[in-house]
Amino acid sequence: MELLEEKIRKEGRIYSGDVLKVDSFLNHQMDVDFLTRVGEEFHRLFADCDVNKILTIEASGIGVACLTAQFFHCPVLFAKKSKSSNISDKLWVSKVHSYTHNTDHNVIVSKSYLGPEDRVLIIDDFLAKGSAMLALIDLCQAAGATVVGAGAVIEKVYQGGGQLVSCRGVRVESLARIASMNEVDGVRFC
Amino acid sequence: MELLEEKIRKEGRIYSGDVLKVDSFLNHQMDVDFLTRVGEEFHRLFADCDVNKILTIEASGIGVACLTAQFFHCPVLFAKKSKSSNISDKLWVSKVHSYTHNTDHNVIVSKSYLGPEDRVLIIDDFLAKGSAMLALIDLCQAAGATVVGAGAVIEKVYQGGGQLVSCRGVRVESLARIASMNEVDGVRFC
Repeated sequence: MELLEEKIRKEGRIYSGDVLKVDSFLNHQMDVDFLTRVGEEFHRLFADCDVNKILTIEASGIGVACLTAQFFHCPVLFAKKSKSSNISDKLWVSKVHSYTHNTDHNVIVSKSYLGPEDRVLIIDDFLAKGSAMLALIDLCQAAGATVVGAGAVIEKVYQGGGQLVSCRGVRVESLARIASMNEVDGVRFC
Repeated sequence: MELLEEKIRKEGRIYSGDVLKVDSFLNHQMDVDFLTRVGEEFHRLFADCDVNKILTIEASGIGVACLTAQFFHCPVLFAKKSKSSNISDKLWVSKVHSYTHNTDHNVIVSKSYLGPEDRVLIIDDFLAKGSAMLALIDLCQAAGATVVGAGAVIEKVYQGGGQLVSCRGVRVESLARIASMNEVDGVRFC
C-alpha cells in the first residue's frame, strides 16, 4: 500500500534496538481517516473469504480492527492480556512471549464469542516475530474456528514472524513490508 | 439512545458487586455496525463543538473512539496505562484510581500529540465513579488543551462520576444512563 509506505517514510522514526515509532498515526495517536483506507484495503484483500469475525489483541490492534470490520459488517473480538494464571474454564487461553520484556503472558478470549461457526480474519498493527499472531491462531484452533487469513498493517519481514504464520497454513497480507531499516538509511521496503 | 437501552436489556448480564457485563457488543466482542451508530450519535451531540481530537483510554475505549472519530474526521489519541513510576519529560501524566482493584496507576500520553491547539472530545465505554475520565481531563489541562465535552456509552449515574466530571466544567453526554440495577429487577434507566 503505497500511501502507507509514504506515511512510514514521512512520519516514522527509527531508534536503536530495531524500534520503528509510528505513534503519530498508528498506535498511540491514530489517524482515523487514513486507517479507514487501511481497513478498506484489508477488505479488498479478504473480501471473498466469508469473514464473519475479526480477531485482534489489545490495545493497539483494536482501532484498525474496528475500522476494518465496518467493511465486512462483522464484529471484532479482542483478546485480552492476562497476568493471572487463574484461568476460568469459560476462556480460551494462549501464551504470548514478549521479546521486548523477555516475559510470557496469557491472552484470553471468552468461549462465548469464538467457536466452530467463526471464519476469522486476524488483524494487528505490527507483525514482527509473530508471537502475538501465533497466539491468536492458537486461540482459534482451540475454539475450532477457521482462520481465513491474517492482516498486519506493518510487517518487519526480516524478523520472520510472517513466515511462521504462513507455515501454520494461514495466508498473511501485510500492507507495508519492511525488508530492513536502520537509523542511517531509513526504511527499505520489500 | 433507545437502541442502546434495548441492547443492554437484551444482552447485558448483571452480576453481584454492581457488575454489568456487556461484553457481547461493547468491551470484548464489539458489534461494530452498532457502535458505528453510537459514534454517529456522539457526532450529532458534539457536531458544533469544533472537535479536532478524540481522547480515550486503553483498551475498551479505543473501538468506540475510532468509530466516532470517523464522523469528525479527526484523529484519536489513546492514553496508555503505565505501571512505571519512571516518567519521561516527554509525557503528560495523570493518576487513575481503580476501585475494582483498589490500586492507583498512571495514565500517559505523549506531549507531541496533546497541546493548546487541541479541542478534545473525551470518549469512553463506561462512566461510573469517573476516575478514568477525570484523569483524561487532567491530561488535557496539563497540556493546555480545551475539553469540549465527554461522552460515555453507558453511565452508572448512581455512582456519581458524571456529576464529578460536570463539576469540572465539562459537558457530559451518556447514551444510556443507568439509575439503578440489580440481579432481580434488571436495569432501570434514568
